[in-house]
Amino acid sequence: MWDLEYDVVVVGSGFAGLATALEAHEGGATVIVLEKMHAPGGNSSISGGLVAAAASPLQEELGIVDSPELLAKDMFKAGQDMNHHDLVKIVAEQSTDALRWTIEKLGVEYKPCLNILGGHSVARTYNTANASGSGIIRPMLQACRKNNIQIRMKAMLSEIVRKPNGRVEGVVIKDGYLFPSGKSGTPLRIRARRGVVLATGGYSRDIAFRTIQNPILNEKIESTNQPGATAEGLVAALKIGATPIQLAHIQLGPWASSDEAGFGVGSMFSMLAGFPYGILVDARTGKRFVNELSDRRLRVDAMLKKKRFSIAITDSSGVRFASTLNKCLKRGVVRQYETIEQLAIENNIKLDNLLVTIERYNRSVSLGHDMDFGKPLQKDLQAIETPPFYAIRLTPKVHHCMGGVQIDREGRVLDIETHEPIPGLFAAGEVTGGIHGASRLGSVAITDCLVFGRIAGRNAANEPF
Amino acid sequence: MWDLEYDVVVVGSGFAGLATALEAHEGGATVIVLEKMHAPGGNSSISGGLVAAAASPLQEELGIVDSPELLAKDMFKAGQDMNHHDLVKIVAEQSTDALRWTIEKLGVEYKPCLNILGGHSVARTYNTANASGSGIIRPMLQACRKNNIQIRMKAMLSEIVRKPNGRVEGVVIKDGYLFPSGKSGTPLRIRARRGVVLATGGYSRDIAFRTIQNPILNEKIESTNQPGATAEGLVAALKIGATPIQLAHIQLGPWASSDEAGFGVGSMFSMLAGFPYGILVDARTGKRFVNELSDRRLRVDAMLKKKRFSIAITDSSGVRFASTLNKCLKRGVVRQYETIEQLAIENNIKLDNLLVTIERYNRSVSLGHDMDFGKPLQKDLQAIETPPFYAIRLTPKVHHCMGGVQIDREGRVLDIETHEPIPGLFAAGEVTGGIHGASRLGSVAITDCLVFGRIAGRNAANEPF
Repeated sequence: MWDLEYDVVVVGSGFAGLATALEAHEGGATVIVLEKMHAPGGNSSISGGLVAAAASPLQEELGIVDSPELLAKDMFKAGQDMNHHDLVKIVAEQSTDALRWTIEKLGVEYKPCLNILGGHSVARTYNTANASGSGIIRPMLQACRKNNIQIRMKAMLSEIVRKPNGRVEGVVIKDGYLFPSGKSGTPLRIRARRGVVLATGGYSRDIAFRTIQNPILNEKIESTNQPGATAEGLVAALKIGATPIQLAHIQLGPWASSDEAGFGVGSMFSMLAGFPYGILVDARTGKRFVNELSDRRLRVDAMLKKKRFSIAITDSSGVRFASTLNKCLKRGVVRQYETIEQLAIENNIKLDNLLVTIERYNRSVSLGHDMDFGKPLQKDLQAIETPPFYAIRLTPKVHHCMGGVQIDREGRVLDIETHEPIPGLFAAGEVTGGIHGASRLGSVAITDCLVFGRIAGRNAANEPF
Repeated sequence: MWDLEYDVVVVGSGFAGLATALEAHEGGATVIVLEKMHAPGGNSSISGGLVAAAASPLQEELGIVDSPELLAKDMFKAGQDMNHHDLVKIVAEQSTDALRWTIEKLGVEYKPCLNILGGHSVARTYNTANASGSGIIRPMLQACRKNNIQIRMKAMLSEIVRKPNGRVEGVVIKDGYLFPSGKSGTPLRIRARRGVVLATGGYSRDIAFRTIQNPILNEKIESTNQPGATAEGLVAALKIGATPIQLAHIQLGPWASSDEAGFGVGSMFSMLAGFPYGILVDARTGKRFVNELSDRRLRVDAMLKKKRFSIAITDSSGVRFASTLNKCLKRGVVRQYETIEQLAIENNIKLDNLLVTIERYNRSVSLGHDMDFGKPLQKDLQAIETPPFYAIRLTPKVHHCMGGVQIDREGRVLDIETHEPIPGLFAAGEVTGGIHGASRLGSVAITDCLVFGRIAGRNAANEPF
């Protein structure tokens, strides 16, 4: 019947999958991690490595007042209150625990400062020392190696095996799969004595699947994701009766550059410099048009609605925390100018209008409040006036799928007919739905993956068989 | 193996189900219609009987310029362009055909005037002579009887039978089912030699299912729907691999009254009188706050956002087309006042503000354009000044589910894994998703049901077996 047998079978090797594997192992289970691509880490590896944590040690040090309740409130606001409240509470309450776990257990290194990202009420976002999710994935992989947790590459999930009694007992994979060839690989049946944990991520790169849910997001819209961000794992779960939830909620990132493919290096520049310490203008008008630190959905809507030519502009004071600046300059994603005049000419912005915009914004900075769009101005914010100046051209790209399978507080996948847990099936991370509602806040994805990955791992290890 | 056998098995007996049954019969198929409740007609029977048709005979007569393209454009606008364009085109192009079919084939009687509903560019909405969907359902049932099409009541779908070769070959029902008792009824297996057509409607009254998709819509929010508007049919389809689409898109009706349960008689009063020929004010401010003829979503958002006490107000000139007026007055849903003063006092509206609001609105009417909210003002619109005056208190109620299973242009249900049609499975009406995108326009639901019900019926009758 089965070719291989483990206590816990984890599908996916990003933040959620590896957190699951480590905790399940810690709980005494034998564990295998399945990854369809030729290398582990999925999207997590190429993410910006931003982790939201409420009431964190660094916040205490810096005197920033925060709480899980405030983080949850920010998540509800961005999510248009369509979030599943009980799950949000868990993410918010365990956010700092999850962060501590990465530091104390895995040895992850973070920069000694906090970032404020769009939609957050306060600066609460840690960033890995290398400004990349790989700063977390690598230590996770090291920990897996140290604990002899096998990660099987080119292992494509083709079926979740659910028995007539309702219990999930294992998976069928295509072993030796060569993405994206549907014909490659040979069937291998892997029993999960205790549980299968789905951590297969989102479907931002699955154009067929995403356009069914939202036809606007056709093949012309780029994505920040790696090519493996496709829907097979989610589909396999839906085929055995998992509950789909909010699949049409698909988020675009407002900070991605039109001058490079994917997430690239420019996204982090916009997030850490252009938006908090600069302005976002429409090149055709030279005017600001949105609070640069509002929720992603609001920013993207503002960018797309009038087909704006969006450019983020900052100066030398604004790039202090832009750790990807040099890479951006080298790749031509961010351009540097000695004067605003030069910046305006080379980007086809009407100089007079841009000067008025900057002057007015600088007045807001000196007043300490944004007169036009209510952007929360940071204490260390300076006027845009010190050369050199920097500009990055932006275009929204498909970034995150808020929808997925429904889970309960224990990370168990719920049956579409009974609304009860499917015995033996868990899920964590972007493949789940409902936590982020209509729009996910930046830097909460990693927190979500870590928190629910750990919960799913602990519970799967203890599932009776 | 099977207890009964038909060419076409139709699940659901509303507009979509009966249109399917009649067309499948016309195509030479033996047909059975299954209905879980004790009476046929579902929500269709209690709807307002409003049918949108583009470039219709009455429009020609009245000199109203319209086209399928304009109807489609209006649908895209309300749907935030998240509609499946190919399906919208079919509904728009066949809208007048579908209307003609109800008149010529079924003998449905409509009022000799057209209505303009929120979000429509022009007056294109027919209304049945009795201002109710029963004005269409009854002739449909008569036609079924005449053609010996059996409608089996208390027949609850419990499973769609899909064979390992991928084909749907029939259904299992609970026969003698007593809604909503899960334990009632005995299993009966019905073979569908050619096709099963799912026409089971939406899930507005399925609180568990709808709150999974949108937790805001909890049990405290009322619905306009009949109790049978639950998700079992949709769930049965998802369990055999149908593609779910936009399930979180659930619409509330802005015109429903807080002074009666369900759709009631007030909804039609607001739609035909209060909104087109009156104003919508917040009782706490005495001010208008939204274009009374904007899309439902915009109106509901405006009503809910600030927890307004919404009241629609009109006068004797505005109630000319309000065919439910007498019923509304009798039931106390609409109240009649000799003076605006009296209306203001009894509804706790600050009189001064209300008088200013009405005066300003009347100036808009005399100018021929709405100075404040851009409401499209009808040619026959008169100032609010002729007693008696009328007021109706409103509260948004869950009304329509835009989401459902994905179908193609032939009404075939698509498989979630292959994106290809599931052989032998069709769907029509509210159980399908994607046609209306983020928000459905008023009076397009019946059109959709008729158009795709007829398509599904024709194709199911011709499905090879």
